[in-house]
Amino acid sequence: MPPLSSLSVRMPEWIKTLQNEITSALESLETSHKFQSVDWKRPPEPGTAGGGGHSRILTGGQIFEKAGVNISVVEGVLPPLMKERLNAKSAEYFAAGISLVIHPRSPCVPTVHANFRYFEQADRSWFGGGIDLTPYVLAPDDFRHFHHELKTACDTRSLETYPDFKKQCDQYFYIPHRGETRGIGGIFFDYLSDDLEKTFAFVQTCGHSFLPAYLPIVKKRKDTAFTDRQKKFQFLRRGRYVEFNLVYDRGTLFGLQTKGNIESILMSLPPEVHFDFSPSLETNDEEKSLMGFFRNPVSWTE
Amino acid sequence: MPPLSSLSVRMPEWIKTLQNEITSALESLETSHKFQSVDWKRPPEPGTAGGGGHSRILTGGQIFEKAGVNISVVEGVLPPLMKERLNAKSAEYFAAGISLVIHPRSPCVPTVHANFRYFEQADRSWFGGGIDLTPYVLAPDDFRHFHHELKTACDTRSLETYPDFKKQCDQYFYIPHRGETRGIGGIFFDYLSDDLEKTFAFVQTCGHSFLPAYLPIVKKRKDTAFTDRQKKFQFLRRGRYVEFNLVYDRGTLFGLQTKGNIESILMSLPPEVHFDFSPSLETNDEEKSLMGFFRNPVSWTE
Repeated sequence: MPPLSSLSVRMPEWIKTLQNEITSALESLETSHKFQSVDWKRPPEPGTAGGGGHSRILTGGQIFEKAGVNISVVEGVLPPLMKERLNAKSAEYFAAGISLVIHPRSPCVPTVHANFRYFEQADRSWFGGGIDLTPYVLAPDDFRHFHHELKTACDTRSLETYPDFKKQCDQYFYIPHRGETRGIGGIFFDYLSDDLEKTFAFVQTCGHSFLPAYLPIVKKRKDTAFTDRQKKFQFLRRGRYVEFNLVYDRGTLFGLQTKGNIESILMSLPPEVHFDFSPSLETNDEEKSLMGFFRNPVSWTE
Repeated sequence: MPPLSSLSVRMPEWIKTLQNEITSALESLETSHKFQSVDWKRPPEPGTAGGGGHSRILTGGQIFEKAGVNISVVEGVLPPLMKERLNAKSAEYFAAGISLVIHPRSPCVPTVHANFRYFEQADRSWFGGGIDLTPYVLAPDDFRHFHHELKTACDTRSLETYPDFKKQCDQYFYIPHRGETRGIGGIFFDYLSDDLEKTFAFVQTCGHSFLPAYLPIVKKRKDTAFTDRQKKFQFLRRGRYVEFNLVYDRGTLFGLQTKGNIESILMSLPPEVHFDFSPSLETNDEEKSLMGFFRNPVSWTE
């Protein structure tokens, strides 16, 4: 690996700051439970440093049934298939990223995922990332608020950014065998390699939009009463979450194929899941509306 | 597709008979619940018949929380990647198979899977199949009984068959990212293309060994008391079952990629699953023994 750029230092610093900011904010709501820290090292390959990660996990909370906010800074060698798929000239890479998945206990509080990553090779570097929401009850005001915050962050880059990244998000979190998206989307981007300084600033803006996008929804919905059927719908939709993550998610498969830390990769899986045979997911108007959004993504900013 | 062989008629007849035999035997134990039938058709591709399947599903039983015994007879066109992986000269194929997965409610009754399939193309045909057991409590007598029955079936082919197919089973149901097998194995074989008549007879022998291998275990264990921790261990190990099936299982991925019937393919997923962060699966001697068998498969016939 040739000398690394300054971003290989500044990105790790920033994701650490963001991790602290997000876990503190979540802990301020979940007063009886704290995040636990887990450090892990990646077995180094010849000529690379290996690196590792720092995971923060909160489980069994009253609000957050399972929440993981992980950072990792690794150096490694791409497996041949991965090298080919990325069309990479060399196999050595550096990667730094933050990844979070929050599975609240109540179906009224949506699951959320965010990820920001920087990838560097000898001849090229890029950023990727995104934030997306997976709700289990119908709350259009929440969906609009969430997308509005992401749009505000995206508008700092250009007015075309939000529509572009929103569309990429709907395409990425699509489950082909179901003909559905995982949730109501958000933004997704990858391989942003132009003007890395500006892009890094944009990625930071996105990262800092996470809390204003998500936290107000948690505060508003955490004490809302729900029915047994709403809880059941959550258990079943969590099944679709598992199907997406294990069959299609590039981040998960990249992690499994590059000897990432298994528990940190799979912390994204929901804590309790039901896989019924051929369940109806449209037993009432609320479910019909939600399933409609999953089948045909709509605009939440108009 | 050129004219099909007589096996393309006899295999569908046999799997129908086996399906009836197995569902009747399971219903005789689960007295308050019956299997429900679901027929499905596969959208035909140009020049092929499409075909379809007949699924039988029992859910919510006292013994069997979720059991599926499915048959399918399909004609189709392999997707390019699949054609390449199978090293196939032509893309058209005929396939007939029976697949069953039984998830009992009690952790004392193991999960079982069996599958027998016949695959035909213009220039070649083969059989594949297997039976494997996924226990959640330590019951070496049951494990020995199960493997002994499979060995008896395999010995009708040759004395090398059982050790060979047992090893293939341990290799196939291996979860690389966990360094564990899914359960305590059984037998697995694929691409058996020599002497198709003899092989068909052998496949039938294996198929008819399913009930004598599994049913005595159900009868013996269905009323055994269990602890909360044994139930929790079952929920967590079911998570590994999901990880294997969605990330690695060739049958599942083949089904998802060839427009199979989604619900029939994914009926293999356990009804209720827990994905805890970094759970300990060795909290007592029973779990340590089981995990030892999953990490280092042992012989059950000596």
